[in-house]
Amino acid sequence: MAERPERLVVIGGDATGMSAASQARRLRKPDELEIVAFERGNFTSYSACGIPYWVGGVVEERDALVARTAEQHRERDIDLRMRTEVTELDVDKRRVRSRDLDTGAEEWTAYDKLVIATGATPLRPPLPGIDAPGVHGVQTLDDGQALLDTLSRTEGRRAVVVGAGYIGVEMAEALIQRGYEVTVVNRGSEPMSTLDPDMGCLVHDAMTGLGIEMVNGAEVTEIRTGDDGRACAVVTPEQEFPADVVVLGLGVRPETTLAEAAGLPLGASGGILTDLAMRVRGYEDIWAGGDCVEVLDLVSGRDRHIALGTHANKHGQVIGSGVGGGYATFPGVVGTAVSKVCDLEIARTGLREKDARAVGLQYVAVTIESTSRVGYFPNAAPMTVKMLAERLSGRLLGVQIVGREGAAKRVDIAAVALTAKMTVEQMTALDLGYAPPFSPVWDPVLVAARKAVQAVRADAAPQ
Amino acid sequence: MAERPERLVVIGGDATGMSAASQARRLRKPDELEIVAFERGNFTSYSACGIPYWVGGVVEERDALVARTAEQHRERDIDLRMRTEVTELDVDKRRVRSRDLDTGAEEWTAYDKLVIATGATPLRPPLPGIDAPGVHGVQTLDDGQALLDTLSRTEGRRAVVVGAGYIGVEMAEALIQRGYEVTVVNRGSEPMSTLDPDMGCLVHDAMTGLGIEMVNGAEVTEIRTGDDGRACAVVTPEQEFPADVVVLGLGVRPETTLAEAAGLPLGASGGILTDLAMRVRGYEDIWAGGDCVEVLDLVSGRDRHIALGTHANKHGQVIGSGVGGGYATFPGVVGTAVSKVCDLEIARTGLREKDARAVGLQYVAVTIESTSRVGYFPNAAPMTVKMLAERLSGRLLGVQIVGREGAAKRVDIAAVALTAKMTVEQMTALDLGYAPPFSPVWDPVLVAARKAVQAVRADAAPQ
Repeated sequence: MAERPERLVVIGGDATGMSAASQARRLRKPDELEIVAFERGNFTSYSACGIPYWVGGVVEERDALVARTAEQHRERDIDLRMRTEVTELDVDKRRVRSRDLDTGAEEWTAYDKLVIATGATPLRPPLPGIDAPGVHGVQTLDDGQALLDTLSRTEGRRAVVVGAGYIGVEMAEALIQRGYEVTVVNRGSEPMSTLDPDMGCLVHDAMTGLGIEMVNGAEVTEIRTGDDGRACAVVTPEQEFPADVVVLGLGVRPETTLAEAAGLPLGASGGILTDLAMRVRGYEDIWAGGDCVEVLDLVSGRDRHIALGTHANKHGQVIGSGVGGGYATFPGVVGTAVSKVCDLEIARTGLREKDARAVGLQYVAVTIESTSRVGYFPNAAPMTVKMLAERLSGRLLGVQIVGREGAAKRVDIAAVALTAKMTVEQMTALDLGYAPPFSPVWDPVLVAARKAVQAVRADAAPQ
Repeated sequence: MAERPERLVVIGGDATGMSAASQARRLRKPDELEIVAFERGNFTSYSACGIPYWVGGVVEERDALVARTAEQHRERDIDLRMRTEVTELDVDKRRVRSRDLDTGAEEWTAYDKLVIATGATPLRPPLPGIDAPGVHGVQTLDDGQALLDTLSRTEGRRAVVVGAGYIGVEMAEALIQRGYEVTVVNRGSEPMSTLDPDMGCLVHDAMTGLGIEMVNGAEVTEIRTGDDGRACAVVTPEQEFPADVVVLGLGVRPETTLAEAAGLPLGASGGILTDLAMRVRGYEDIWAGGDCVEVLDLVSGRDRHIALGTHANKHGQVIGSGVGGGYATFPGVVGTAVSKVCDLEIARTGLREKDARAVGLQYVAVTIESTSRVGYFPNAAPMTVKMLAERLSGRLLGVQIVGREGAAKRVDIAAVALTAKMTVEQMTALDLGYAPPFSPVWDPVLVAARKAVQAVRADAAPQ
């Protein structure tokens, strides 16, 4: 008689979980490895990053965001159980308890190998009214559908977005595109706290220019509800902002309820700690990845939490290779992120000033203005590049870019340079693509590097 | 009495020469350094790369291409002598002989330090009719003006471009934009011989799609002239292509007439050989840079000739620093170049297959199809990426990209990775910017790197 195949259990049916399952399936056939995956929502393998564009009408069909359906996974011999939530993880007995959200039925499933891909949970402070109808997060496709349902039922055109990070600014754009009057209420001094304030300020100006009312330095204390029980205003100590719909973009935290209860190791920012092969530290048979883990920041040397689909997909590949008996690692991140508000492109990689200070790095910071194309070329658009370099050594620490067409993906130059631990001096000699429609003769990143070199030298000069 | 200031003589008043002069002037005042610069043409410090766009009407004003006029240079105490050609270099007596092209007057000028920035000369094979009116190169602003004068006088609308390198394809686009029927006669099997033929083929198809008649594998034997002595057709052994105007885009060679006569060292591709500080090898007081020198290719380890404005500007900075008593080097290139034909973007960096073979490198090559944005995002455009990696080691050797919006500058990722001598395995973990409007969740360059990793492994596996 054949041996019983090993069983892999996957908790979470989105990017990491299903990439891991698919990669493991590629490496090991069903007679070697049984795969059971649990997903508590209605969708699998979808692009959460695309939700703002679907809400904004740029992407017309919800299903376009679904990279692979439950059916498609099942055709590959993955036993995917939708609307089934894992409620308990028993690492001693190597089993998970799950509940069918429709029938309420519960059962235990044993595993030989486990993948935790529980993602992140939107931050939802315990404010009065925060759970009222008309208040929406946009973390899942289900969330997006609920928001669109509200929008289609709501006659008023006033939208308030709480928070001004990636989700907040992208949702502000989406709602503007839907024809709403949009107010963004933001706790920070500027939008996009993933940038330094002097760069966030440029985003503020651009959003104001788009007709978005920006309210910075404002702490929301209540979501006021009307007689019908629905949200009707967002309240701060200074002011009240009428709202026909409220969208929360307050960021996320790693969803680690199961992991924490099971005693798995968590890091300082609350994510599960793994080794470089994405195995949970101290556990031979449990992997974790995606928005529920911390990753090594190669610039600061610290573990940190970054919820981003591109990392989640990479984690899934690495985990699937490991589960399937192969070898792969996720060496870490440099903290690259790009976004946009209408035609304003926003990019960052590496450390902000406060990140550098927090790990004891001293730095020089420079900011330059340049253009996306040669100045004489039509549609040459302004671009602001900020660059941080370590004092004395001149090692690149971070880059932030705000501009129009062609600004965002230029940050990749710095992302690779950070990975290679280049100095700004080395960067000045980089052989980057040049032609008048694509770049000034000195690419904006090179202009910043040259200025950073001067700053490093001036700082190092004897007084 | 004050000492006589040193004298710097600069031969050539374009990017390298005038950048060097300006940088030297920043470091040393007129009482320390006298600067005399000779330029045989009518313009200085201009963007030769912009000429096709000016001819095409995308850039309206010729003067827009001039970064700094002769007057502006003179205001900075640079004795710039326009329309004055240096006809002899006497390195023993440290002097140059120049001729005023208007008066014919000649004189010798002594130097303490010399910068040779004589640029490149368009290739002009000695064919019958090649010097006839109506046959134009587009190397200098004067050339561009002459071509525009011809176009404005010519009633016929048939243009033939000879050559299908950067200049050839850009001029084909320019002439299409001017409303000409354009035929490109090209010796190679595909346009853009700076790409491998399988990638050049994509350019061929796109150009054909734009209505450009592409004739590959065709050697021009004659430029036929009419009764009026003007060019009227381009002749190959197989065919004859009627032409109201003929544009030559056959590439360039380093202009080293002076240097060669003076016995300065030249490399295998005919450029002046310098050290890393751009000093002519064996000469303490002579620098050379820009289109007249060879540069170190960091991937192949060989010196080669690359005529490109971005290198010329960097050389100028390095030379100016050296002349001014500072220190800077030009470590070399990886061979990055970007271009476009209408909305088709073309990029390359590193080695082509034949370059790798020529230096004894064995490689695997992969090609992938991806898109500029997430597939579901509007205007997601197809993109083809070819990647070469060294056998066994997996070191990145080169990348070629052909696609639409967002294709060209992605090559910078590979340019930095080449500089850092990354392997394709390392590249798969690069933390590149991801958001649906800017990239698929796996950037096309990462998709290529992943496929290259598989190819390296398959190649290395025991049979």
